[in-house]
Amino acid sequence: MSLDPEAKLAELGLKLPEASKPVAAYIPTRIVGNLLWVAGQVPIVPGADGKPQVLFKGAVPGQVTIEQAQQCAKQCVLNGLAAVKSEIGSLSCVRQVVRVGVFVCSEAGFTEQPKVANAASELLVQVFGPAGQHARAAVGSIALPLGAAVEVEFLFEIDPECPR
Amino acid sequence: MSLDPEAKLAELGLKLPEASKPVAAYIPTRIVGNLLWVAGQVPIVPGADGKPQVLFKGAVPGQVTIEQAQQCAKQCVLNGLAAVKSEIGSLSCVRQVVRVGVFVCSEAGFTEQPKVANAASELLVQVFGPAGQHARAAVGSIALPLGAAVEVEFLFEIDPECPR
Amino acid sequence: MSLDPEAKLAELGLKLPEASKPVAAYIPTRIVGNLLWVAGQVPIVPGADGKPQVLFKGAVPGQVTIEQAQQCAKQCVLNGLAAVKSEIGSLSCVRQVVRVGVFVCSEAGFTEQPKVANAASELLVQVFGPAGQHARAAVGSIALPLGAAVEVEFLFEIDPECPR
Repeated sequence: MSLDPEAKLAELGLKLPEASKPVAAYIPTRIVGNLLWVAGQVPIVPGADGKPQVLFKGAVPGQVTIEQAQQCAKQCVLNGLAAVKSEIGSLSCVRQVVRVGVFVCSEAGFTEQPKVANAASELLVQVFGPAGQHARAAVGSIALPLGAAVEVEFLFEIDPECPR
Repeated sequence: MSLDPEAKLAELGLKLPEASKPVAAYIPTRIVGNLLWVAGQVPIVPGADGKPQVLFKGAVPGQVTIEQAQQCAKQCVLNGLAAVKSEIGSLSCVRQVVRVGVFVCSEAGFTEQPKVANAASELLVQVFGPAGQHARAAVGSIALPLGAAVEVEFLFEIDPECPR
Repeated sequence: MSLDPEAKLAELGLKLPEASKPVAAYIPTRIVGNLLWVAGQVPIVPGADGKPQVLFKGAVPGQVTIEQAQQCAKQCVLNGLAAVKSEIGSLSCVRQVVRVGVFVCSEAGFTEQPKVANAASELLVQVFGPAGQHARAAVGSIALPLGAAVEVEFLFEIDPECPR
């Protein structure tokens, strides 16, 4: 990539959050060789009181609109990238995005999970260029952790020579 | 494998469709080393008017029967194999199927996701022989993209010497 | 790891079950290089009559309590570890747990999938120590195979020099 992904984020007016602690007994990332798995991310943001809160809660489209769910998907990407940076020091160490799994809290009959997931996919391509393209599975889920409208997990290929 | 997988498909009276474009902002396949991820496939077929359409829509078993969902699962395999062939030129470059993820659009209380997923698993074994066997996760989903009754994603091991 | 994982299991008063046959046309494990995928496990236990039965069936929290679902999650881990041992001979050949996918059969509005999944995650850390930590995706599912309250799939890194 000719453009630094973190410079690209800044150019998009986006800022990586602090890497957040998992809400449970697991870790945010795991590396084997040049593959880096990122745990499922929910759209947690700092609330007005400084405490973390979920961006939008509930099922699409009744409780959460597609547009709101797209915001959630983008936040999941930012949170996932924060985890990556926290693990390997720099997003420049990402060689490519490999797979993205998107779970959209859905009412029965809602079929536009791809529209929601596109917000995540497009942000990854904006940040990483062609290296941000990825295989993807997007499905509906009856309910997600913390009531989140969206959960996204990631698999990256990283530069094995990057510091860890 | 002694038998060419594409010859096997022909022997089974099956034909790979044209590799279809993803319905969204992602790519059908991603390779790292000898691993090839295939994006979640829905059972899209060419309609009577030539336009792509989803084979069966809705939840099993009320709106879609188990048999219809099995047809969907098989079509997902064909669509996934078309994506593989489009990426690496030949199904003979597949060393083994590694993991298959099957999402079955389900009514609450439906518990026969394995029966549906078996249609996908069995087709892979028919085509690739023992190399077609795989680890699998099959689960119910409240709703899937385009209303599809089934979505299947794949992970293959490929011959790293195959042309790309 | 300084402690043998199987000794640790015994110390916890836990016993690996017999590796069970998949309920369908797939295999319990697949290896590529030093990665070992384990198929989605449901909480099957030997029944009073010796026949396998599912520990708890139905959705959390109405039909199955969180505590019961946690028991299911632990049983899925034991069943998954039995599959690993059956494939590579010894749990000492596990280098680390990489990724765990947890599906919790959920009523709409149930948001404590992490609490359920923690039972699986914590058991893995008890058994393998820090090497048992992992990236994780935990989501709700409308329905699971055999009516199981929980399904868990696993990805392990193994010692490539272990016998197979």
